[in-house]
Amino acid sequence: MASRQRSGEDSLIARYFKPIATDPGAFGLDDDAAALKAHGEDIVVTTDAIVEGVHFLPDDPPDSIARKALRVNLSDIAAKGAMPAGFVLTLALRGVDEAWLAAFARGLGEDANSFGCPLLGGDTVSTPGPQMVSITAFGRVPEGRMVRRSGARAGDRVMVTGTIGDAALGLDILRGGGAAALADAGAKAMLIGRYRVPQPRNALAKTVRDHAHAAMDVSDGLAGDLAKLCGESGVSAVIDAPSIPLSEAASTLLARGTVQIETIVSGGDDYEILCAIPEDGFEPFVQAARQAGVAVASIGTFIAGSSIPRFLDREGREIALPRLSYSHF
Amino acid sequence: MASRQRSGEDSLIARYFKPIATDPGAFGLDDDAAALKAHGEDIVVTTDAIVEGVHFLPDDPPDSIARKALRVNLSDIAAKGAMPAGFVLTLALRGVDEAWLAAFARGLGEDANSFGCPLLGGDTVSTPGPQMVSITAFGRVPEGRMVRRSGARAGDRVMVTGTIGDAALGLDILRGGGAAALADAGAKAMLIGRYRVPQPRNALAKTVRDHAHAAMDVSDGLAGDLAKLCGESGVSAVIDAPSIPLSEAASTLLARGTVQIETIVSGGDDYEILCAIPEDGFEPFVQAARQAGVAVASIGTFIAGSSIPRFLDREGREIALPRLSYSHF
Repeated sequence: MASRQRSGEDSLIARYFKPIATDPGAFGLDDDAAALKAHGEDIVVTTDAIVEGVHFLPDDPPDSIARKALRVNLSDIAAKGAMPAGFVLTLALRGVDEAWLAAFARGLGEDANSFGCPLLGGDTVSTPGPQMVSITAFGRVPEGRMVRRSGARAGDRVMVTGTIGDAALGLDILRGGGAAALADAGAKAMLIGRYRVPQPRNALAKTVRDHAHAAMDVSDGLAGDLAKLCGESGVSAVIDAPSIPLSEAASTLLARGTVQIETIVSGGDDYEILCAIPEDGFEPFVQAARQAGVAVASIGTFIAGSSIPRFLDREGREIALPRLSYSHF
Repeated sequence: MASRQRSGEDSLIARYFKPIATDPGAFGLDDDAAALKAHGEDIVVTTDAIVEGVHFLPDDPPDSIARKALRVNLSDIAAKGAMPAGFVLTLALRGVDEAWLAAFARGLGEDANSFGCPLLGGDTVSTPGPQMVSITAFGRVPEGRMVRRSGARAGDRVMVTGTIGDAALGLDILRGGGAAALADAGAKAMLIGRYRVPQPRNALAKTVRDHAHAAMDVSDGLAGDLAKLCGESGVSAVIDAPSIPLSEAASTLLARGTVQIETIVSGGDDYEILCAIPEDGFEPFVQAARQAGVAVASIGTFIAGSSIPRFLDREGREIALPRLSYSHF
């Protein structure tokens, strides 16, 4: 390839990423590869990329872009019942903006540290197009214990963590949609924050592993992701829509008719855990979740069948959901 | 995020990538994550992205783009003395071109199969910019045995596999540079092939692990990568430039003065293994390499010191190398 004086890329990495690559297996980012210890466990591997203009906005704060890139992967690790073990980063940049990079690396380092998920390696490439952050993250689970999407059984409860729909409303605000009419500045900031910086439920990973028949994280919308989980498990589900946990801001917007339930359940970017909990595991699951400090809610039941999950309103009528979730193509 | 009817992305993945995700740990790409068995070994992790217009050309055949994306990672795995264990793929596409995707997946599947490196998972995202393929690949080595860049000692031989410079000349031909004047169509095709589809030296991985004090793959140019290895090992090196193994095509172009030695040693994209072999390991290394069917050549010696490695010509005069290697920034 065309050649230039060495150092641009190396010095970028040294300056911004070496300080956060503190795991011994990262070899200070000075090698071609990292070494990940398995400790006799299985390594859970997940990869998720975020693209400027698609998953984040060009003027999103760089530290929140970094956090989102890592957290969408941490969310998968959590939903699989695994403990974070580290990650590698591919950064496609249009050029070198030192202030942007410094803020990006700071956000990344803080999250890597607080979630116990060290940077192990990476690649930095130039692109003339939108910037992109691709992360492959690793987790550890006891052998054969990764929680799958398959495994939900008829009779299991459909449960979710946290609240649903906030991120979609946050994006709506940023795009000047109906939710932007919300008067409460704090509520708006909360919704935008939920879009920009997901709160992955890694504190619940062991609880999920101990109790869930099946689990996944809600990234593309509750309705579509539930349909996927049902499909993999060979079951269907009935959801009591009023039981879906909502933030006060989302409830207000829904009550006013500013947004429809469809935006809530098919908007995506929630990064909550959706799981199947057998009836006899329900109480222990709820108690363990409370101890882990993660809110969980029972929103319906898995049933036999292969139809798309149904969402019922307060009167038990089915809610029409023409679009279940976000798809890139 | 904006939502659309489910299926675009899922059906793409099902159609093109599920058939090549045959490893049990890939769960048929039906889950959020893969499970990688460690078998008591360390997992070597490497990640490399290739960007349209930077690492491959828009009209490169899609199957060769796929092969290159995987092979640049396989090359790192080989240089670290590890056996391929699998990979995950992030594909940023401008849109859905079924013929392109079918060819891409076919090339990827064939290589995954022939190198014993199964597809474990991935992410497909849309981009308005250049297409990009990011791969994170995994290898297995006995605990603590990953071959590092550090470890070369003064007195070790500097050795490389294969031939150096062909890929840079192939790119030069594709760009209509001086090398395009080469009359021999077969030689031109060979050089272009070396640029488009590297030949990673995975057959040599165990030999490298058994004999090398240090190793890395040559991706950004021999001169620059040797400088990196020296820097990590705290040594310098002297290279006898006429000993650098060249293809007949490269020799011809160099003899005619069509290209300079600088293009050969700093052009990059070689994906050969550069390693430090102690004198007493030299004969066994050469023999094992012969058995593995990989050509190796001794091109110089590591020496004490911290200066940039020197390349000497036939008369022992130092060759000036203003640019050691490719850098993205």
